[in-house]
Amino acid sequence: MKIGCFTLSGELISKWEIPTRTAGQGSLVLPDIAESIEKKLSEEGESPDTVSGIGVAVPGPVINHSFVKRAVNLGWENLDVRETLRELTGVKNIAVENDAKTAALGEWWKGGHENCSSAVLITIGTGIGGGVIMDGKIINGAFGAAGELSHIQVDPEETEACACGKFGHLQQYASAEGIVREFRKNLTQSGKTSVLSGKPALTAKDIFDAAKAGDEAALTAVRNAARMIARVMGAVSAVIDPELFLIGGGVAKAGDFLLDMIREEFRRVVIFTSEDAAIEPAVLGNDAGICGAVKLVL
Amino acid sequence: MKIGCFTLSGELISKWEIPTRTAGQGSLVLPDIAESIEKKLSEEGESPDTVSGIGVAVPGPVINHSFVKRAVNLGWENLDVRETLRELTGVKNIAVENDAKTAALGEWWKGGHENCSSAVLITIGTGIGGGVIMDGKIINGAFGAAGELSHIQVDPEETEACACGKFGHLQQYASAEGIVREFRKNLTQSGKTSVLSGKPALTAKDIFDAAKAGDEAALTAVRNAARMIARVMGAVSAVIDPELFLIGGGVAKAGDFLLDMIREEFRRVVIFTSEDAAIEPAVLGNDAGICGAVKLVL
Repeated sequence: MKIGCFTLSGELISKWEIPTRTAGQGSLVLPDIAESIEKKLSEEGESPDTVSGIGVAVPGPVINHSFVKRAVNLGWENLDVRETLRELTGVKNIAVENDAKTAALGEWWKGGHENCSSAVLITIGTGIGGGVIMDGKIINGAFGAAGELSHIQVDPEETEACACGKFGHLQQYASAEGIVREFRKNLTQSGKTSVLSGKPALTAKDIFDAAKAGDEAALTAVRNAARMIARVMGAVSAVIDPELFLIGGGVAKAGDFLLDMIREEFRRVVIFTSEDAAIEPAVLGNDAGICGAVKLVL
Repeated sequence: MKIGCFTLSGELISKWEIPTRTAGQGSLVLPDIAESIEKKLSEEGESPDTVSGIGVAVPGPVINHSFVKRAVNLGWENLDVRETLRELTGVKNIAVENDAKTAALGEWWKGGHENCSSAVLITIGTGIGGGVIMDGKIINGAFGAAGELSHIQVDPEETEACACGKFGHLQQYASAEGIVREFRKNLTQSGKTSVLSGKPALTAKDIFDAAKAGDEAALTAVRNAARMIARVMGAVSAVIDPELFLIGGGVAKAGDFLLDMIREEFRRVVIFTSEDAAIEPAVLGNDAGICGAVKLVL
């Protein structure tokens, strides 16, 4: 877990990491965080009173900046994160939010986009996350699902189910796992060969590297992912028409190679009025979450 | 053109219609409106000073509640609607907005949904329009394209172009014209027959009527339209996750027959968290526009 200490004017003064202990249905997670903050303050010779607020980014849906019904990765179920952390730390001003949404707020705030009236962050990694920022605020949605871009249907003909149980969602094609799946499927179906043919433990990075080196099958897989992402971005434009798209996450480390393809495919599919929407790389990496979490409480 | 007179508390006290004269690049439109308002006031024995504001709904994109670059149906180009109408009427408080967006605001306000934090109106008629309302306000977007749901790609394999020049947009399948086109195409491709086979001037209403009477080909066409609309609604949920969808427009007059299919297809495609979003018929019909326009200035 990443923890950061910020001044009231939003300057990051220190950051550190602690391990996530998920034993006991994640019951150690919040005490570990509280203890780590306390230890840090004591090391710096600061009193606990100097902490005027705590922002928390959670890998799961969050209700009312406070309550988590379920966070699979941590083992949490029906946990009032705000209340628990208030009791553990004595700090009253606590805001809790989903990590992808928080990262979007962080990128908007600390990534140099504070003048943007609306921005959408798409993080492409093991899974695909998203966050929608309008007028400097996270859009949550009536059921907390705003920004869940990975679950937009991009292929109505899909016969394999997405992890969520529905079919043809973005997640299945453009996440790290999805890119590998699609690459393998196309190779089998087309009967073509690739420099990666027969490689047992294939990663999305292998496919990007092969694509950059000119491998045709790998190029097809990357192009397909870019097309699916662009299709979702086109839908986002027709719904809220954001000024800016930010692309982040592990897969996005492929840089301009992927970004240029996304830009090209986006212009091909989006309504003409929104063709000039900016498409830029996210810049904060793992710091986006702590930045956004702090922005929540500031 | 529809004109309505409202009290300051938002009560509709009278409404009437005047013809749209598009001659001279639509230069008569605003003078005709100003004259009609003046005539009405004089008939009612009211002074022009009693008008505290005018809201205008325009069939085209509107910039800054004022400026219209192009409204094809009226012949307008680069017209400052607010300034022009200010000069013609002497009324200062004037707000101008796109008609689909205004209708969404009207339905939210006068259709009994003021407690809804977010609502999306989809009007399915000759074309398809959309409007997004969040916290009681129209979402415009950075390029004015928010709510342009007709231009979301629903069929990536489409080879015929949408009116906008791109391919596979909702408009091509679920507008009145799109439903007829798809019905004809499927009939030709499948070699099936329908009670409508050979009928020369086919309308979407004919197809709905035949579908209700059990004609299989017509049913397929309606089901296809419902599926495409639901696909777009699923995307809307993953972006802003609205509490409520409102379905309006001429095609929606098919009522529960279409609505139930949309509900079913929506649940099939949307992320599970948003399955409970309400899907209701719009109720104001042609009055939605004047209601929303007035809400803008109130």
